[in-house]
Amino acid sequence: MSNYDQLTAHYQTINHFNHAQSMLGWDAAANMPSGGSDARSQAMAELSVHIHRLSTQPQVEEWFGEAEQESLNSEQQSSLREMKRQWQQATIVPEDLVQAQSIAGSKCEHAWRSQRQENDWTGFEKNWKDVVKLSREEAEIRSEGLGLSPYDAMLDKYEPGTTTASLDSLFSDVKSWLPDLIEKVLQKQQSQSVIMPTGNFSVANQKALGLETMKLLKFDFDHGRLDQSVHPFCGGVPTDVRITTRYDEKDFVQALMGIVHETGHARYEQGLPKALAGLPVGEARSMGVHESQSLFFEMQIGRSKPFISHLSRLSANAFNVQKDPVFAEENLYKIYTQVEKGFIRVDADEITYPAHVIMRYEIERDLINGVIEHTDVPELWDQKMKASLGLSTKGNYKNGCMQDIHWTDGAFVYFPSYTLGAMYAAQYKATMQNTVDIDGAIKSGDLSPIFQWLSDNIWSQASLHTTDELIKRATGETLNADYFRKHLEARYL
Amino acid sequence: MSNYDQLTAHYQTINHFNHAQSMLGWDAAANMPSGGSDARSQAMAELSVHIHRLSTQPQVEEWFGEAEQESLNSEQQSSLREMKRQWQQATIVPEDLVQAQSIAGSKCEHAWRSQRQENDWTGFEKNWKDVVKLSREEAEIRSEGLGLSPYDAMLDKYEPGTTTASLDSLFSDVKSWLPDLIEKVLQKQQSQSVIMPTGNFSVANQKALGLETMKLLKFDFDHGRLDQSVHPFCGGVPTDVRITTRYDEKDFVQALMGIVHETGHARYEQGLPKALAGLPVGEARSMGVHESQSLFFEMQIGRSKPFISHLSRLSANAFNVQKDPVFAEENLYKIYTQVEKGFIRVDADEITYPAHVIMRYEIERDLINGVIEHTDVPELWDQKMKASLGLSTKGNYKNGCMQDIHWTDGAFVYFPSYTLGAMYAAQYKATMQNTVDIDGAIKSGDLSPIFQWLSDNIWSQASLHTTDELIKRATGETLNADYFRKHLEARYL
Repeated sequence: MSNYDQLTAHYQTINHFNHAQSMLGWDAAANMPSGGSDARSQAMAELSVHIHRLSTQPQVEEWFGEAEQESLNSEQQSSLREMKRQWQQATIVPEDLVQAQSIAGSKCEHAWRSQRQENDWTGFEKNWKDVVKLSREEAEIRSEGLGLSPYDAMLDKYEPGTTTASLDSLFSDVKSWLPDLIEKVLQKQQSQSVIMPTGNFSVANQKALGLETMKLLKFDFDHGRLDQSVHPFCGGVPTDVRITTRYDEKDFVQALMGIVHETGHARYEQGLPKALAGLPVGEARSMGVHESQSLFFEMQIGRSKPFISHLSRLSANAFNVQKDPVFAEENLYKIYTQVEKGFIRVDADEITYPAHVIMRYEIERDLINGVIEHTDVPELWDQKMKASLGLSTKGNYKNGCMQDIHWTDGAFVYFPSYTLGAMYAAQYKATMQNTVDIDGAIKSGDLSPIFQWLSDNIWSQASLHTTDELIKRATGETLNADYFRKHLEARYL
Repeated sequence: MSNYDQLTAHYQTINHFNHAQSMLGWDAAANMPSGGSDARSQAMAELSVHIHRLSTQPQVEEWFGEAEQESLNSEQQSSLREMKRQWQQATIVPEDLVQAQSIAGSKCEHAWRSQRQENDWTGFEKNWKDVVKLSREEAEIRSEGLGLSPYDAMLDKYEPGTTTASLDSLFSDVKSWLPDLIEKVLQKQQSQSVIMPTGNFSVANQKALGLETMKLLKFDFDHGRLDQSVHPFCGGVPTDVRITTRYDEKDFVQALMGIVHETGHARYEQGLPKALAGLPVGEARSMGVHESQSLFFEMQIGRSKPFISHLSRLSANAFNVQKDPVFAEENLYKIYTQVEKGFIRVDADEITYPAHVIMRYEIERDLINGVIEHTDVPELWDQKMKASLGLSTKGNYKNGCMQDIHWTDGAFVYFPSYTLGAMYAAQYKATMQNTVDIDGAIKSGDLSPIFQWLSDNIWSQASLHTTDELIKRATGETLNADYFRKHLEARYL
């Protein structure tokens, strides 16, 4: 067996344990009764240890050294590059730091659940201090290993190839037009009247509606399913993708669009190439590209007029309320495109969302690079919130810098992926329009031409190319925020 | 760390992987869409290989050697004995034989699914030949390793300590009175009129009824749940027991009693001692003892008059049919105690069931010991069926020796456990009656005193004692078929 084949077999083995880990995680969120938690945590920790051991075993380094001398075709070269990337990710941070981070993160997050409600920055800060300190240590180690700045080295985890320089440039572009755009849209929507849904929307009916919507989006039910969990997510494995949602019996709107969003993640996973299954090169390209699929489904398809026409019909059927004005096409469209300045990122609309992301990016970049201290965050948050959305968070920590779980348990550097995804999605659409009658396809109820484009250009490409190459092959150029701007202007102005 | 502690830590590790394996198996049966099957099989096979590797790693043998010299209390001695038993089970059969058996069993079972429907003994025999041959090889190897006869050595897998001699003696006792009892009961029930349920019993209502019944049986929903699968089973782990059932919308009777049965298995698992969790000594004693719990719940509690009174009330409520005579106490009792001679074991009633088991035992015992050949089985089946139930299966393979999945994939030696379980259950009841007002407790709707007895005497004892010791401590004597006879006579004559 060649060294390359040894590596391939080894990563297939790791993949089997990842399969188990992924399913146990999904089950813990979707099925497990609370009393099962301790034993489950232990089993999952054991799997993590085992996966880490496999991922870092010394032989692997030898195989890489030898495999690089072997004659490989371009697909194999990509495969080798991606295996090596995963190996570097696994070996670069010492195990005791990973463990210390896990403990500090859990402690901080656990306390945060009540501290947030109590607006207790002082209490939070005591735990968070360690989380920040350890993340900076991690960034320092990655920085030395990769020869990048600390924040860029951290970016490599979720967005290989993306740099502070590129983000600064993209985001400063967005910042140059976003505040003005928000004002104009608010002005335009000021006199708009919207009827909000009220009343009882049973979980059974909402689920039936969700499943109908997933069918329209050609979710492959032979390779996945829809369930419920407190925090909606897309989990499982490519051959069996498990998406979840959370139902509110007073309002079906959010859960429904949440399902559209997760279906986008799911179809990416379901559409990854079978021939590369189980190998790093066969996995999704990056978090940003993953978000580009969920956001293509949610923003480019889901909130488009022709799609909302389907949702209007399907939801009126599901709740058996054919003449209720709530479900009228125009009203649903207004609901799904309503813009409002708010404190909370997860409640934000399509236009104000990037403002939330960009300020988080700016703060975490400076925090990880050691330019500011963690105690500077509340003040900076207040300043940036005032500058971008005109809202003060002075003393309002719970709706300010304490609102998200991400930083709480040390998941820095993830926020940019959301807005990168939204921008990629707008750029795909601009290109797709040249060859696909998008609105026509949506209207007809057969969205296959849209999915074929996504499959050809994104899903089937997995991690064969770098992100920049992937986007360039799909759209003719690397990421360009102009498409995002044009999309927002076209929809909202 | 002492060698004993090393072993303990090692078996805890194995337990974590078993946790993953068990949950993946449950998920495959209860949730997984068909397209997920290949990747799941690969992941589960990888876990099996890993568990096998851990279970047989050479260090373990050294630890056993050293641990036996260490000073251990009696619980630790039991723990050591059970770890060693699992280790012997894992190491005694060479890996290539296990693999050959797995392949031959899968092949035979796969073809059997259609061959059975087509009554195709000739086709079946061609595959089954290898399954039998490999099982005999396994028995031979175990026989040499354990110094027991081939069948006794195989019995050790599911029923440690049980021997052909003891089974022969128990079953010949049963055979001496069973045919006569069956005739008498049939005579008695001849003029009995029973109204069978018909019509639509929705899955949702049946599930609600099942959950109500599980509450009455004090299933711990904080440590388990009820789902659906094609073949009902009890899976999961002791802290999170997953039971399943299969609903027939035309008839709720079987699914309901199936839930009672699985709840018995579940409460045994839920009641295993927390202090021994994750260790072999903390596991259920044997398959026969496991069946004794499901059958105690089904036969001793479930089909008793006072419990059927609860089922009458709960089912009439669940289906909202308060005045339907189907749901009347007396009618339900007749349904649940109706006796009929039939070809199919899984459809058999409480009295004819042992006849099905005993003939299978006699055939597989002689087959494994090399006294008969696999081609002799149809003829023997016909003879024994005629002798015990007066039914001929000549040429009727699909309702004869091809009816069960067990032998098809090589699961010999399991059948006796069903009837051992029924006999243990009757013996527990006879003893329990001395200190617990069983009928009174059931009538009152608070069955705690019954469960307390089972917990004290069986659940909390896990595998601390041999099966004989366990039964003797619980009931004052080893297994005695008299209690089973008396139970059947009291209920049916």
